[in-house]
Amino acid sequence: MTEAATTAPRYPQPDLNSLPEDIKAKILEVQEKAGFIPNVFLGLARRPAEWRAFFAYHDALMLPETAGRESGLTKGDREMIVTTTSAANHCLYCVVAHGAILRIYEKKPLVADQVAVNHRKADISPRQKAMLDFAMKVCQHSDEIEDADFEALHAHGFTDEDAWDIAAITAFFGLSNRMASFSGMQPNEEFYLMGRLPKGK
Amino acid sequence: MTEAATTAPRYPQPDLNSLPEDIKAKILEVQEKAGFIPNVFLGLARRPAEWRAFFAYHDALMLPETAGRESGLTKGDREMIVTTTSAANHCLYCVVAHGAILRIYEKKPLVADQVAVNHRKADISPRQKAMLDFAMKVCQHSDEIEDADFEALHAHGFTDEDAWDIAAITAFFGLSNRMASFSGMQPNEEFYLMGRLPKGK
Amino acid sequence: MTEAATTAPRYPQPDLNSLPEDIKAKILEVQEKAGFIPNVFLGLARRPAEWRAFFAYHDALMLPETAGRESGLTKGDREMIVTTTSAANHCLYCVVAHGAILRIYEKKPLVADQVAVNHRKADISPRQKAMLDFAMKVCQHSDEIEDADFEALHAHGFTDEDAWDIAAITAFFGLSNRMASFSGMQPNEEFYLMGRLPKGK
Amino acid sequence: MTEAATTAPRYPQPDLNSLPEDIKAKILEVQEKAGFIPNVFLGLARRPAEWRAFFAYHDALMLPETAGRESGLTKGDREMIVTTTSAANHCLYCVVAHGAILRIYEKKPLVADQVAVNHRKADISPRQKAMLDFAMKVCQHSDEIEDADFEALHAHGFTDEDAWDIAAITAFFGLSNRMASFSGMQPNEEFYLMGRLPKGK
Amino acid sequence: MTEAATTAPRYPQPDLNSLPEDIKAKILEVQEKAGFIPNVFLGLARRPAEWRAFFAYHDALMLPETAGRESGLTKGDREMIVTTTSAANHCLYCVVAHGAILRIYEKKPLVADQVAVNHRKADISPRQKAMLDFAMKVCQHSDEIEDADFEALHAHGFTDEDAWDIAAITAFFGLSNRMASFSGMQPNEEFYLMGRLPKGK
Amino acid sequence: MTEAATTAPRYPQPDLNSLPEDIKAKILEVQEKAGFIPNVFLGLARRPAEWRAFFAYHDALMLPETAGRESGLTKGDREMIVTTTSAANHCLYCVVAHGAILRIYEKKPLVADQVAVNHRKADISPRQKAMLDFAMKVCQHSDEIEDADFEALHAHGFTDEDAWDIAAITAFFGLSNRMASFSGMQPNEEFYLMGRLPKGK
Repeated sequence: MTEAATTAPRYPQPDLNSLPEDIKAKILEVQEKAGFIPNVFLGLARRPAEWRAFFAYHDALMLPETAGRESGLTKGDREMIVTTTSAANHCLYCVVAHGAILRIYEKKPLVADQVAVNHRKADISPRQKAMLDFAMKVCQHSDEIEDADFEALHAHGFTDEDAWDIAAITAFFGLSNRMASFSGMQPNEEFYLMGRLPKGK
Repeated sequence: MTEAATTAPRYPQPDLNSLPEDIKAKILEVQEKAGFIPNVFLGLARRPAEWRAFFAYHDALMLPETAGRESGLTKGDREMIVTTTSAANHCLYCVVAHGAILRIYEKKPLVADQVAVNHRKADISPRQKAMLDFAMKVCQHSDEIEDADFEALHAHGFTDEDAWDIAAITAFFGLSNRMASFSGMQPNEEFYLMGRLPKGK
Repeated sequence: MTEAATTAPRYPQPDLNSLPEDIKAKILEVQEKAGFIPNVFLGLARRPAEWRAFFAYHDALMLPETAGRESGLTKGDREMIVTTTSAANHCLYCVVAHGAILRIYEKKPLVADQVAVNHRKADISPRQKAMLDFAMKVCQHSDEIEDADFEALHAHGFTDEDAWDIAAITAFFGLSNRMASFSGMQPNEEFYLMGRLPKGK
Repeated sequence: MTEAATTAPRYPQPDLNSLPEDIKAKILEVQEKAGFIPNVFLGLARRPAEWRAFFAYHDALMLPETAGRESGLTKGDREMIVTTTSAANHCLYCVVAHGAILRIYEKKPLVADQVAVNHRKADISPRQKAMLDFAMKVCQHSDEIEDADFEALHAHGFTDEDAWDIAAITAFFGLSNRMASFSGMQPNEEFYLMGRLPKGK
Repeated sequence: MTEAATTAPRYPQPDLNSLPEDIKAKILEVQEKAGFIPNVFLGLARRPAEWRAFFAYHDALMLPETAGRESGLTKGDREMIVTTTSAANHCLYCVVAHGAILRIYEKKPLVADQVAVNHRKADISPRQKAMLDFAMKVCQHSDEIEDADFEALHAHGFTDEDAWDIAAITAFFGLSNRMASFSGMQPNEEFYLMGRLPKGK
Repeated sequence: MTEAATTAPRYPQPDLNSLPEDIKAKILEVQEKAGFIPNVFLGLARRPAEWRAFFAYHDALMLPETAGRESGLTKGDREMIVTTTSAANHCLYCVVAHGAILRIYEKKPLVADQVAVNHRKADISPRQKAMLDFAMKVCQHSDEIEDADFEALHAHGFTDEDAWDIAAITAFFGLSNRMASFSGMQPNEEFYLMGRLPKGK
């Protein structure tokens, strides 16, 4: 029995130039900024309508200022939720890609590996620990969320709007995790090292 | 200790007239067609950017013709995936609301209750059973999806595009399930009875 | 590979007239009252001794007055326990059949679907919620039942006799769930709609 | 905080002389034969109607000749099912009491401890191993029982009637396990040693 | 399909006389004392370096006086931890062998069967119950151990050194359980009866 | 409520100079070679007898040549087993420390993160995938290991000696994982970056 490489994506990636202009433009913009095209952008682009909805949702949650709204979560908090819950879902793409961004935003080269393995042992604040406890419950037992879970957030100063942010980010990346895992999406090599070295090196 | 009613939503619903015009228009259109406003439309509307992304994603998957694409899944197939995986996630809103639509599309008043309790005992085709087996694996163990799971779909005539549809619908409603459960969204009473009676009654 | 229909019972049902007189009489009495013969009556009748014990046990728990005893649980409470724990066991027959009776006794057309999907979101009293929490623990982790579980019942006015009722109903229908699922028992179509419509319609 | 002994039953046991005549007679008969009264007989007797149904059910399954029927399972097979599935349910009473009877019927002083810890490592026949695999699936995942499970039994010469026996014994003792665990029923000391010594010692 | 007996070890056992002198000497010493050679001694001896490390570790934990240290756990406590956690890991060898030693040390012929089936129902002290709760958490969810788990031990007078003992014994026998189960190690028949009879019989 | 930092070890680390000479010598040797003292060496040293057994066991498995034996597993294979199963046990120390060594031995800067998140998606050979499948079963369900698991290894050229290596490494690091997690052991910062950069940088 021969087997296909386990690391090839299951679905062919479209050529950048074959994509609708708006999608192509956004991808080029990302490439300009990041220096490479994260695989999720091409991996989902074969279905333009889904692509547009996916990134609109992503931006509404992860870039709240683009939605004209402020969030009680920092950029680092948001990426920490993504990394932690994606590890619980065993999604390679999201752990590696968002772990990289988490390291950069938090300026902590170790934190992504820590929350991915066991957020209880990570070098994070008690407030972040409570945030991740709530996220993990939404990720794994959303039907059991109850008043006490909200109260545990409130005890650390989180509002109900913050709770919505935590839950929605968790829910959205639960979608992303399933799409990436099912379709064999691999993280770009660039992500693995990002944020691990002091600047200037 | 007093307790709030378990059936009240945790977040206040916005007044329809306070919503952005595009959202208000779409909600009125739905109300016109359905005769009532399904709670998910108001429940998510307090965050317009997320609302727009949510329903754009929904339509891209559940109304593929709006995305200029055909699907190998029928309308009934799609609702069956939603009802089955939402039951696995214990999401009351989605089981009741999409179970109603499933009954109507499949013209089978019993099928929604069957797949919600145990899809293995439901009066569905072997092809639909295979479709639901794949959906349930994406729902519960997406990290373990492997070649054999695709082959099981192929054996029933599903293509890889169909597999994408099944996975994406499952993933999107996994998001929806978590949002509905976490925020205490309740299904409208109208859904419970829809599609259970022969037409004309 | 051809497959048998998934909805046919695995064991042939006996002819009513071939059954022992006492069993036949009781079944006819049920048919008289209900207007049809619930499938459990014929499904188990191929083994008369087991049939007699099953229904004697059923009546001792579900019709306590036939055992010369009063119960602190209402008829609706009892059916609510059956519906909720049978859903946890994914037993199609019991969820549909007892969900019907639950709707009628509680005069709430929505409650059965609610507790079957997620009893934490159901429109029931805090007392009933505590009752179902206890039942679910007996259903799923009976070895871990401890003093605190009884105390949680007492806090809602339940006595130790009531606790016995909750546990015994859960345990008996755990038996029933396994028999129905293993033998491919299907609920009669009549059950699906019972109690969903206002009287007179 | 003081705690009640964990080994006391939660419910007071009735005095033998206060019991209805038929129950008292049967208990005295058991005592005559066994030399002691197994605790299940007094533990359940406070509810005579349930007691009668419980033992009627027990006898219909475990003493098929009393129901005028033959079984393809031996007496040892039946007790092996009880011991194995009761261990999966962590029911102390049933593992110890039925483990004792299993040792006696099988004339194997080691087999009860073996199947209670891990039936895969027990010194039993491949046919008994298949029987226990089926029983464990009925015990833990009855909703997933499918054709392949029956075929695995057939491959070892079991009929569908035998399958019913295996399933029904498992289901009945699942009830018994929950009642014993919830009510704090303890096995009589006599059971622990029964069948462990060669006769005559 | 023929099957090998499930009770034969997967790996051939070395001849005692072929073993290195130190190993042979220790095994003969054990045989002298116990009257037989427990199978673990020959089962692991095919790899002398691993054998030496295994028994050195064992002695460091189970015979603390050989390590020049005192333990707040009694000999019975230590064997109780082994029996309970080995049952959770379904390891036949360790449950039977260490259950025997537990009976002897605690002078309680029933306790090993009790903790193996359900330590919550065993006739042990509240202090021992807390000890086993901690051990079970290390066994099954070591990543979730938190301050509250240590505090629950302290409430019963255990020190942090005692906590180390409980955790290390659990961890070491988790290793032992996996080696025994994977390699098909069977307990010697002698263990099954040890400590069940009053001395002198 | 104030909380201790989650990243401090629970037990004080001994001063290097207070340790027995043999332990001190070995630790200095490691420090000489690695440039730092991995925390496991000091974290376990407060109990010298356990320390000696732990590292003797470690060397017997991970440095088979020191035990006068050859292994069919490469050094990279062994570290891959450790990293994968330690991630399943959510052990931060072992994933980070052994992930580092894995990267170096395999000369693959990405592989450790891949197997830690989902070994099914890692860029490894089918032979290594089979090796990890076996290791994960020993890690999580050792009681269910059966002939078919060995046959799956044989199909990739592994011998029964190799199977022993895989199982024993998994079992030993299961011990290590529990000790590290329970005692709050943190990986040294040096490990996080090791093997991620091309040599010479």
